Amino acid sequence: MTKPVTVALVGATGAVGEAMRSILEERNFPMDNLILLASERSAGEAISFAGKPYIVQDLATFDPKGVDIALFSAGGSVSKEYAPKFADAGAVVIDNSSTFRNDDDVPLVVSEVNPEEIKNRPRGIIANPNCSTMQLMVVLAPIHRKAGIERINIATYQSVSGTGVKAMEELGKQTMALLNFQQAESNVYPVQIAFNVIPHGGDFMDNGYTSEEMKLVWETRKILGDQTIQVNPTVVRVPVFYGHSEAVHIETRDKISAEDARALLEKSPGVEVVDEREPGGYPTAVTHASGTDPAYVGRIRDDISHPRGLDMWIVSDNIRKGAALNAVQIAELVLKERE
Amino acid sequence: MTKPVTVALVGATGAVGEAMRSILEERNFPMDNLILLASERSAGEAISFAGKPYIVQDLATFDPKGVDIALFSAGGSVSKEYAPKFADAGAVVIDNSSTFRNDDDVPLVVSEVNPEEIKNRPRGIIANPNCSTMQLMVVLAPIHRKAGIERINIATYQSVSGTGVKAMEELGKQTMALLNFQQAESNVYPVQIAFNVIPHGGDFMDNGYTSEEMKLVWETRKILGDQTIQVNPTVVRVPVFYGHSEAVHIETRDKISAEDARALLEKSPGVEVVDEREPGGYPTAVTHASGTDPAYVGRIRDDISHPRGLDMWIVSDNIRKGAALNAVQIAELVLKERE
Repeated sequence: MTKPVTVALVGATGAVGEAMRSILEERNFPMDNLILLASERSAGEAISFAGKPYIVQDLATFDPKGVDIALFSAGGSVSKEYAPKFADAGAVVIDNSSTFRNDDDVPLVVSEVNPEEIKNRPRGIIANPNCSTMQLMVVLAPIHRKAGIERINIATYQSVSGTGVKAMEELGKQTMALLNFQQAESNVYPVQIAFNVIPHGGDFMDNGYTSEEMKLVWETRKILGDQTIQVNPTVVRVPVFYGHSEAVHIETRDKISAEDARALLEKSPGVEVVDEREPGGYPTAVTHASGTDPAYVGRIRDDISHPRGLDMWIVSDNIRKGAALNAVQIAELVLKERE
Repeated sequence: MTKPVTVALVGATGAVGEAMRSILEERNFPMDNLILLASERSAGEAISFAGKPYIVQDLATFDPKGVDIALFSAGGSVSKEYAPKFADAGAVVIDNSSTFRNDDDVPLVVSEVNPEEIKNRPRGIIANPNCSTMQLMVVLAPIHRKAGIERINIATYQSVSGTGVKAMEELGKQTMALLNFQQAESNVYPVQIAFNVIPHGGDFMDNGYTSEEMKLVWETRKILGDQTIQVNPTVVRVPVFYGHSEAVHIETRDKISAEDARALLEKSPGVEVVDEREPGGYPTAVTHASGTDPAYVGRIRDDISHPRGLDMWIVSDNIRKGAALNAVQIAELVLKERE
């Protein structure tokens, strides 16, 4: 590398921002300057990174000139307003919100699946997929290439960290209250999440699906580059802090056996197969995903209800691979372009 | 009724036995004598029923002569040994274990679905379906009759009470330990259930499905009387105390719209539709199912991935309708025969 590299982290104090800082540090990301940005409320906060103190700056008054890569994870409205400003000033924006994901001139990239797409960014913006789509794509892309996925039935078991820090606090507080025989108060979710599961994420659409469900439909098609793939999702929030799980039932154009799928996935990047067909011989949020990088897959079996069906159970850390890690991996791909 | 009625409750002190006592009391079940039976360990315990004290008797030394109806919920091995003895002595046995469910000469009955089957009991034994199948059948039977169900993709969110009292204690203890920053100990489940979900119920079979999953396949076909129905289940345990939830994606022979299915289910026995397409406008274990009788259904929508597909979310109290209530309802049907 010849030029020094400046990275800006927008939303540096949030759950994903915190994970981005850890991951940049862990991977020893090759940068010369790091700028931490957040709303006025968090500006002035001191944060340590790689042993050095950084002061969080106010996004509203920051001049983006000179930023090479901007990692955005501060919510849709912040991305909508500030991402184009950073891009116009010359930065490559990697955005974690849903704002630009469906735009034709913004690539939607999973680093293991369609890294070549990062080049097609006329607006200087690259979108990071939704967490539930991300882990699904890491596992399904190799199968799609081999056997052609025609249809996906998916039911999710999504952790509260996907909603944010306040949702994690709500799960903790409600649980504590209930164990002390007190009333559980719901503010973030419409009904109690502690010791409950909620079949709802995002907003309700006219077709009866929710926006979180439709993200799985739209993003899957865009990332796999195939508008014919049918996706039927039910998105459910569960009282888990970190790690999304997914019960995935797929139908392929060509039959792929559980054995062949397992062999294929064992050599696929970003995937770790945990599939022993015995108690504990499958991945879970707590035992495998939380705090780690791979998309784990287990319970791989031939679907007894369909001649070309395959079932599996996919688990990953929604904050890491589902958000922060993939964004950083995209940033690494962008840096490679400059070499 | 002419003859006095004697009811024996085998497994009277367990989670389902306790629910059976409540339900017999609530429904003012028309009986003259109640006999509470359990293992030697629980024998001698005093239990109040309808304001009167009862002493739990030792099953091993009890003479079943004179028992008209025996409700068994003491596990498979107890049913295997004692159910035939009670039946031989003249009782109608209603068994909650899986022991006899697949036997051709034992009817498997959901009271709202196939009540006429109780007559076909050459061995004097009627089997009560598994909890996860029960609530599914209450909702799907009317749709099957109307449109012919060809295939069911189902992912479950099953509460720990389905495993038993010790599993409920484990969830409570693990949660408490984790909130106090201590290690969570797993004894009942192979991995931590608190703040986690576990894609596993029962034993692993050669085809990669678990026994709890195959129960959904076999029992659905037997109860609906149609061996051609294809069922593809993923059974998952979630950190919920009471109430099983199910994400259900079905494919029918004839198209049935979400609107028609909703209208049909609104007038179906044992079903309650909760389907508002807004935050909280769906049933959950805590807000609806726990401690109540119906099979609740919401999130009813046309499956965008299949021309004859329909999606829904089904929730019910696994201990009540999923076990104790249906057994008592079968007992009521048996008594009606005598009128």
